[in-house]
Amino acid sequence: MDSKEATCCKHKDCSEKERKDLINRLSRIEGQIRGIKGMVEKDAYCTDVLVQVSAVTAALNSFNKALLANHIKTCVMDDIKAGKEETVDELVETLQKLMK
Amino acid sequence: MDSKEATCCKHKDCSEKERKDLINRLSRIEGQIRGIKGMVEKDAYCTDVLVQVSAVTAALNSFNKALLANHIKTCVMDDIKAGKEETVDELVETLQKLMK
Amino acid sequence: MDSKEATCCKHKDCSEKERKDLINRLSRIEGQIRGIKGMVEKDAYCTDVLVQVSAVTAALNSFNKALLANHIKTCVMDDIKAGKEETVDELVETLQKLMK
Amino acid sequence: MDSKEATCCKHKDCSEKERKDLINRLSRIEGQIRGIKGMVEKDAYCTDVLVQVSAVTAALNSFNKALLANHIKTCVMDDIKAGKEETVDELVETLQKLMK
Repeated sequence: MDSKEATCCKHKDCSEKERKDLINRLSRIEGQIRGIKGMVEKDAYCTDVLVQVSAVTAALNSFNKALLANHIKTCVMDDIKAGKEETVDELVETLQKLMK
Repeated sequence: MDSKEATCCKHKDCSEKERKDLINRLSRIEGQIRGIKGMVEKDAYCTDVLVQVSAVTAALNSFNKALLANHIKTCVMDDIKAGKEETVDELVETLQKLMK
Repeated sequence: MDSKEATCCKHKDCSEKERKDLINRLSRIEGQIRGIKGMVEKDAYCTDVLVQVSAVTAALNSFNKALLANHIKTCVMDDIKAGKEETVDELVETLQKLMK
Repeated sequence: MDSKEATCCKHKDCSEKERKDLINRLSRIEGQIRGIKGMVEKDAYCTDVLVQVSAVTAALNSFNKALLANHIKTCVMDDIKAGKEETVDELVETLQKLMK
């Protein structure tokens, strides 16, 4: 676990710009959740809440797609070239979890 | 839109207790999102982030299941009995969005 | 189980036309599965197979959306009006399974 | 397109045994679809049909997980080692489609 820290985004292709984009996405999602909490507190109509929650789920899915694409194009590719094939097993395992 | 405000959770079965449960779930989810933001800021390993995001997606899905069950057992049922059949059309439309 | 047989589509709104539409959808899906089997037998490229399987999943989802809409607008609504409220519990239970 | 034919499963790790397993899964899924068609023809209860369709969706998802794991561990890994980096772009693109 410890040895993995800071591995992924130290790769050449995960620039500061990409990290900022990911953090901005998460800040927007956090704001959406707060907005939904406000809706529930103010007794908003259920179906409006259901649709907003779906929008957050879609935003999280987009986030994961962006992060996964970046991970494969940097960490996974570099590790395979460097002969660290266990990164592939780990990718496969992660994908099984994401596709549950 | 305006006329819908405050409709759903005024029903007999959506007690203060249920609303509190929904708000607590959203607060926990907000905390999870903040945790993931911290992970990205600290360069955590991508696959750890991907798995945490999946956990939030699952929590949002559970939230929607709870809210939908409550909505159907209160609003939808009462409205059908009262002859307001448009609530059924609206439920069907919402489900189509949730099942996309 | 036995007592449920033939309940749903005997309702006024599930015409012969609707049943035929559902059966046609399933026949097309069956054909798609056979096509994918042929692809695997002929050593087709994996990603082409993956994308075809996704298309079938989407078709099954559309099928379920159509069937669910019809079920709610006929069975569920009629049963609620007739005071058979257990149909609502059953709907909620089914939705929980579909949203897993 | 043509040049891709027969690429994937010619790799060392996609044995005849693996292909047979994939084809058997598809034959079972085809049988499940035929079973559902029979249910609809015989007016089975809607919720029973909905749940069976969900089971097929889960089976297709398992199929895709198995095929994807095999694809990554053979084609993708071999192609990266051979310097064919376009296979990675293609994998990323396919994953975006599967995670829609």
